[in-house]
Amino acid sequence: MDIKAYMEGLGQSARAASRVVAAATTEQKNKALLAMAEALASSRSELMAANQIDLERGKSNGLDAALLDRLELTDARIDTMIEGLRQVAALQDPVGEITDMAYRPSGIQIGKMRVPLGVIGIIYESRPNVTVEAASLCLKSGNATILRGGSEAIESNQAVAKCIRAGLAKAGLPDTAVQVVETTDRAAVGELITMPEFVDVIVPRGGKGLIERISRDAKVTVIKHLDGICHVYIDDQADITKAVNIAVNAKTHRYGTCNTMETLLIAKSRIDDVLPELISAYEEAGVELRGCDVCCSFSPEFKAATEEDWETEYLAPILAVKAVDSMAEAIAHINRYGSHHTDAIITENYTKSRQFLTEVDSSSVMVNASTRFADGFEYGLGAEIGISTDKIHARGPVGLDGLTSQKYIVLGDGHIRR
Amino acid sequence: MDIKAYMEGLGQSARAASRVVAAATTEQKNKALLAMAEALASSRSELMAANQIDLERGKSNGLDAALLDRLELTDARIDTMIEGLRQVAALQDPVGEITDMAYRPSGIQIGKMRVPLGVIGIIYESRPNVTVEAASLCLKSGNATILRGGSEAIESNQAVAKCIRAGLAKAGLPDTAVQVVETTDRAAVGELITMPEFVDVIVPRGGKGLIERISRDAKVTVIKHLDGICHVYIDDQADITKAVNIAVNAKTHRYGTCNTMETLLIAKSRIDDVLPELISAYEEAGVELRGCDVCCSFSPEFKAATEEDWETEYLAPILAVKAVDSMAEAIAHINRYGSHHTDAIITENYTKSRQFLTEVDSSSVMVNASTRFADGFEYGLGAEIGISTDKIHARGPVGLDGLTSQKYIVLGDGHIRR
Repeated sequence: MDIKAYMEGLGQSARAASRVVAAATTEQKNKALLAMAEALASSRSELMAANQIDLERGKSNGLDAALLDRLELTDARIDTMIEGLRQVAALQDPVGEITDMAYRPSGIQIGKMRVPLGVIGIIYESRPNVTVEAASLCLKSGNATILRGGSEAIESNQAVAKCIRAGLAKAGLPDTAVQVVETTDRAAVGELITMPEFVDVIVPRGGKGLIERISRDAKVTVIKHLDGICHVYIDDQADITKAVNIAVNAKTHRYGTCNTMETLLIAKSRIDDVLPELISAYEEAGVELRGCDVCCSFSPEFKAATEEDWETEYLAPILAVKAVDSMAEAIAHINRYGSHHTDAIITENYTKSRQFLTEVDSSSVMVNASTRFADGFEYGLGAEIGISTDKIHARGPVGLDGLTSQKYIVLGDGHIRR
Repeated sequence: MDIKAYMEGLGQSARAASRVVAAATTEQKNKALLAMAEALASSRSELMAANQIDLERGKSNGLDAALLDRLELTDARIDTMIEGLRQVAALQDPVGEITDMAYRPSGIQIGKMRVPLGVIGIIYESRPNVTVEAASLCLKSGNATILRGGSEAIESNQAVAKCIRAGLAKAGLPDTAVQVVETTDRAAVGELITMPEFVDVIVPRGGKGLIERISRDAKVTVIKHLDGICHVYIDDQADITKAVNIAVNAKTHRYGTCNTMETLLIAKSRIDDVLPELISAYEEAGVELRGCDVCCSFSPEFKAATEEDWETEYLAPILAVKAVDSMAEAIAHINRYGSHHTDAIITENYTKSRQFLTEVDSSSVMVNASTRFADGFEYGLGAEIGISTDKIHARGPVGLDGLTSQKYIVLGDGHIRR
């Protein structure tokens, strides 16, 4: 197979389809989304059968249990995919939104219209539900998509793709509006990220290694999410109840998510007030504690943290804890070791809250709230294609708006420039 | 000179300075801008002397008259630079603007805060006034800058840089907040665009060749402006007076600007109504006309246009004219041959105006107004660092907002995720 020619073919078809979906009405896009949901619902046995092939091959290839779990399509997971499609259909259509129309002294009236980006390439690993999530958000925002899932999930993804195409057809949209790459050849990724004439943005979803590799080699903008080394800082003027509740929630609510706290910073003067309660809560939850010198001398529950601990996204029941002299030290630590994802301060002090919000250079900065809130649903975006740790184009949870751009529109009545 | 080490040194200093200017108050930034204006005003003789060296070297190197003109610093041009600094000081500070704060069902309050991008690299050609324009917009938006002007202007740019540093010092800001590259070695550009650890965005200002080269090789986002192949389409339901006024203004108001019309499209049914008047107006202005078959048989004033004419940015008193059967044909022509910069329709028809606004894929789309309005000042942005023909991050005229990004802020009162 000539991978380059194959990918360019997908690119050309996607570019052509992007013009059609950009002009599609809200009704048409929603019809396609709901028809995809119906197709999934009536194809459960085909989906499960295809998934079974992937699972068996995965087992014989020695995939680990976590990967097999992510790969598996259960009835409940198919329900979630269906529900997701219905939710995206219910979201407001961002395309065509006109804002900021105002008259200028020249007499022209100027504002902005929200428009699709064009063609979006999505590269992801084993979870087949990403195929539906990504396709639905891209379609609703008027974009064409090329999806490249992990080779372990190839059969499942093709089965899902069939349902997506059925939905597009039912709404009279071209089936090239969502294309799932049919080859497992790794060269396909290399082509996808270096065709700026056909692909406008790449969204990689997966491990840090994958994303770094793609960012390095891509010839188009990458909306990237590297890692989530999130911090909670308990200030010397923190309310103790809020501090303990949030520090426990931010770590133990879920361990494998990017908005989970990985490092807890505590003002030295409050160590005695909060650590005993926190140590017992973390012990109960089974969280391993790694601490700075101050923490280690406070309690034998702490192992000594190394420099590496401050820059690690554990994604596991492990927490690094550091005592700091001041908020300034906490902010410096966060900006140096963090990943610019989500960081929170717990304080009752007005001036410090404003300063923390301003000086912490992260995509989400919080006061007296758990880092676990950093999420498209919680933020009211409806759904998210990912969380950007970049500053350009989109930052933080990326929903439908992040998959669009704004053009200027100018209304005149025969106006000429003097 | 070790160019790589030199540029990395500038990068490190810029990164450090970016944290300081990001946190600088509006008052401090304005003080620096006004002090720069004063320094320019009191350094006229030094600026002229430095410029004289550039001009003489340029003449002996055989630079053409247009380039020498762009290079020259006159009293009037220094006045314009001074006035520009005062205008940027008067603009509203975009940094820290908080918008869209709203409560979510969970009880958290969420919104966005506007923040600087970090370090911006500007690459430009001969005009020394760009040094001041770019530095002032980047500083006002809280960014550090590394400026790399053309080698022909090296002495002038260094003299301007001295005034900029004096202004920064007067406001207590680090003089590394604006750094002008001191070497004319071309390798410096290659380094500047491939240091993502130190530079967040590149803005190239210059010819299409320069911009294409930089876009191809850059390892960070490039806010790019390729070319301005702008169209006016005179619809079969156009008001004739508006059509003629706008078609003449869009072409003849200035020839060398990117928002000047390069191709005029006319509905076939209106050829008889508008062409005679337009031909005499263009003849009077000295505009050469190149037309399609229909135009050529209409009048001997037309030379036959070739395929190349439809994709050329003349930047000169030349106009390509094409008769079209329908608005659909006009839109297809614009989306195919245009540069997605600025395109206008002249029509009295409501439905067609909406359709044109929606379907033309350009950074500015206009109804009954001259393409010459596509400009940061005319749009009320105050000033512009350039006009982006890209879709990602910034589109159309890029002012202070385009040099910033938005982070999410979350305010809670002890909220945890359930």
